[in-house]
Amino acid sequence: MTQTTATDETATSQSEHIAQLDRSHVFHSWSAQAQISPLPVAGAEGSYFWDYSGRRYLDFSSQLVNVNIGHQHPKLIAAIQEQAARLATIAPSFANDARSEAARLIAELAPGDLNKVFFTNGGAEANENALRMARLHTGRHKVLAAYRSYHGSTAGAITATGDPRRWGSEPAISGVVHYWGPYQYRSPFHAESEEQECERALAHLRDTLMVEGAHTVAAIILEPVVGTNGILVPPENYLAGVRAICDEFGIMLIADEVMAGFGRCGEWFAVDRWNVTPDLITFAKGVNSGYLPLGGVIISAKIASTFDNVPYPGGLTYSGHPLACASAVASINIFKEEKIVENARTLGTDVIGPLLKQVADRHPSVGEVRGLGVFWALELVTDRETRQPLVPFNASGESAAAMTKFTAECKRRGLWPFVHFNRTHVVPPCTITAEDARQGIEMLDEALFVADEHYTGA
Amino acid sequence: MTQTTATDETATSQSEHIAQLDRSHVFHSWSAQAQISPLPVAGAEGSYFWDYSGRRYLDFSSQLVNVNIGHQHPKLIAAIQEQAARLATIAPSFANDARSEAARLIAELAPGDLNKVFFTNGGAEANENALRMARLHTGRHKVLAAYRSYHGSTAGAITATGDPRRWGSEPAISGVVHYWGPYQYRSPFHAESEEQECERALAHLRDTLMVEGAHTVAAIILEPVVGTNGILVPPENYLAGVRAICDEFGIMLIADEVMAGFGRCGEWFAVDRWNVTPDLITFAKGVNSGYLPLGGVIISAKIASTFDNVPYPGGLTYSGHPLACASAVASINIFKEEKIVENARTLGTDVIGPLLKQVADRHPSVGEVRGLGVFWALELVTDRETRQPLVPFNASGESAAAMTKFTAECKRRGLWPFVHFNRTHVVPPCTITAEDARQGIEMLDEALFVADEHYTGA
Ligand SMILES: Cc1ncc(COP(=O)(O)O)c(C=O)c1O
Ligand SMILES: Cc1ncc(COP(=O)(O)O)c(C=O)c1O
Repeated sequence: MTQTTATDETATSQSEHIAQLDRSHVFHSWSAQAQISPLPVAGAEGSYFWDYSGRRYLDFSSQLVNVNIGHQHPKLIAAIQEQAARLATIAPSFANDARSEAARLIAELAPGDLNKVFFTNGGAEANENALRMARLHTGRHKVLAAYRSYHGSTAGAITATGDPRRWGSEPAISGVVHYWGPYQYRSPFHAESEEQECERALAHLRDTLMVEGAHTVAAIILEPVVGTNGILVPPENYLAGVRAICDEFGIMLIADEVMAGFGRCGEWFAVDRWNVTPDLITFAKGVNSGYLPLGGVIISAKIASTFDNVPYPGGLTYSGHPLACASAVASINIFKEEKIVENARTLGTDVIGPLLKQVADRHPSVGEVRGLGVFWALELVTDRETRQPLVPFNASGESAAAMTKFTAECKRRGLWPFVHFNRTHVVPPCTITAEDARQGIEMLDEALFVADEHYTGA
Repeated sequence: MTQTTATDETATSQSEHIAQLDRSHVFHSWSAQAQISPLPVAGAEGSYFWDYSGRRYLDFSSQLVNVNIGHQHPKLIAAIQEQAARLATIAPSFANDARSEAARLIAELAPGDLNKVFFTNGGAEANENALRMARLHTGRHKVLAAYRSYHGSTAGAITATGDPRRWGSEPAISGVVHYWGPYQYRSPFHAESEEQECERALAHLRDTLMVEGAHTVAAIILEPVVGTNGILVPPENYLAGVRAICDEFGIMLIADEVMAGFGRCGEWFAVDRWNVTPDLITFAKGVNSGYLPLGGVIISAKIASTFDNVPYPGGLTYSGHPLACASAVASINIFKEEKIVENARTLGTDVIGPLLKQVADRHPSVGEVRGLGVFWALELVTDRETRQPLVPFNASGESAAAMTKFTAECKRRGLWPFVHFNRTHVVPPCTITAEDARQGIEMLDEALFVADEHYTGA
């Protein structure tokens, strides 16, 4: 029996109290409520958070890949406190300085003539509104969305989603058709090079439009770099190719940058990397690192003008929430001052990318390392030849045991990993130091013995 | 030419700058973007807000009927600032003290065994999730929703909505059927008394279930007191009658308390007034007066247990946002300390109700006054006999001119009214003083000459 101080005991009972209230009264997302025991978090700073026992975790998941600026950035906290003292909330129908300035800053960052911002509370609502805008602008109903995508969990956004999270909400909205995007490691097109993957993915998209009737399609919605479903960086010319197809058929291109935007890819927007201008960009998460709920749609001049004299039929009570907008203003300014986007890019090219490739060399179970910026995936396999995933698609319970054990090994070492299916993603804050990134990857490296134990290949 | 001081000039140019950025970059809800010129708001306190010229408005609309505690309540602001310093955000999968305590407080306030809370960012997302829970719990698909209702603007919530805001988003989700709720002043059932309205409305609901197949219906969603669509207080036994019908057919009753809850009706929840326990309550707005975006679903033990061992397929990045939850904790505690719910009730019975009835006596154009708590409507008509609305259903532009002029008259006097179709709602903060309520009603009284000018009845 170890001796505990009075403070330890207080902390423990506080933690237990929070956990007990949580299990009695908090209904959690995406979970079987009786099978979870959420860890009470006591505090967080920078790239770390800790529990009530003082146990610290290096946050390699940036929570839900949203705390891009790191936890509790003092300047961002101060800005929130100041705006709270000035004006916490005002209805969407008024003008407000924080709202105006947030919209100006975001429009300034956005490519092309995407000059107007419709603010929402999060990513799902942003996509809901982008779909509505595209449909009304084009007068068409159908939407093409990619398999292996996530767009949110409200009825419209979940229908666009191309992962198993959609299944529990079907049937939802009509007119959404799923197509296959590029994914070279598991090519849906049996391609053998990046060029071929690109060519065939575009041909597949074109074929899908042919059989669906391109003139019936309002929008193609995609994650420029697919996030939760695998950090799928598109082949070099893919997004430009999609843009060209959209232009050919008068289809709106919606880039869902909720996860990929605001520094994650080492760019303000992922599309910047390929110089592609969508018609609508949706954002959330990194815009203010989730210090307050905020999302939105950045709208091209062409689409915005459709609603110059015809009312836009959508809204929400907290559109352009002053406190949320003030946090976006502060966050964007801090990003600029501290060169956070550049830092994320350099971390990817100079630190995280190279180190993860070394990790892959040491572990047969790492089938592929891919990513950019602070947005990386290790794909774990039982066989490098066949590329058999370490656990099956959408595995849970016993069949996901190898990944569950891997997760536990990471946590035991003080690393909080992001794990999805047979992958672990390396998605720390964009502000992580090279040293912390190195240490985190070391812990990941050590935990990967669990995956290697399941390796059956040569 | 009036002389302006340097300060005035600064304020004016600041105001113009904000407005100009707003028109360049902010895309507003429910609006034709080229036809609006949103007023820049400089600050707010209690029941007032003001523009940059120092012009103060008495807020008779509580913004979007959400600032129940009044503007910039110092204790609530302090609580937000403190939590921001402690921990702004953490992912939904963790436990967190603010989240646990907010859930505990809300569960404690909720009737019956509604003991678990699923947090969202706002009302639409709350309804989306309530619908999903009801469908999965019952294994049925159909949902009955009322005409003359508003439930939010995401695909699921807007389909449930029974007002013209739905039209621009159709078709949306499948399986939603609209029925008529009670509305004695314009009875859909040609009833001649409250009892008859109640009886016939319940018979209509039962008939609708008969022809739809009650066993195919997962949920009936309704606003216990209809908000934006008219502040329709139900006949005394209506909600109990709906509850009984739901019980008879195994249908979940969803009470959308987004606008009616948290003090608005002089109760914590509107259903408390009739001692009815729904299966799911959705909330937002008044829970924290919108100082941060927050909403949620309060879930019965029965429905929650459906997801004990089967994962609930829904979520959002900011579910149970610590900063938002901390603001709810503080707000609920302030409501208790300052007896805000009781104040709202007394204001309704002793001040607002009686004064509005006097106003009606003075103005032939006031066809009906109805409401409770700080939730009142004046229905304006051109003829008390025929009850012809002052402007047509969903009027806009020239055909809504009488209401537009009335609105302008209110604003000219320093009152910010809530106006919808041919009605003005009296929905100030629950914390308004009797004196301010009296003054506001006086301004309303004065502005009503515009409506009287359109009166054509006897
Ligand atoms: C790409 C993408 N789009 C949309 C969403 C939905 O955002 P929210 O959870 O804020 O509704 C997410 C959330 O993970 C996302 O990753
Ligand atoms: C009764 C009701 N339900 C739902 C909503 C939608 O809430 P939100 O605007 O936060 O999505 C509203 C908003 O006015 C409402 O009044």
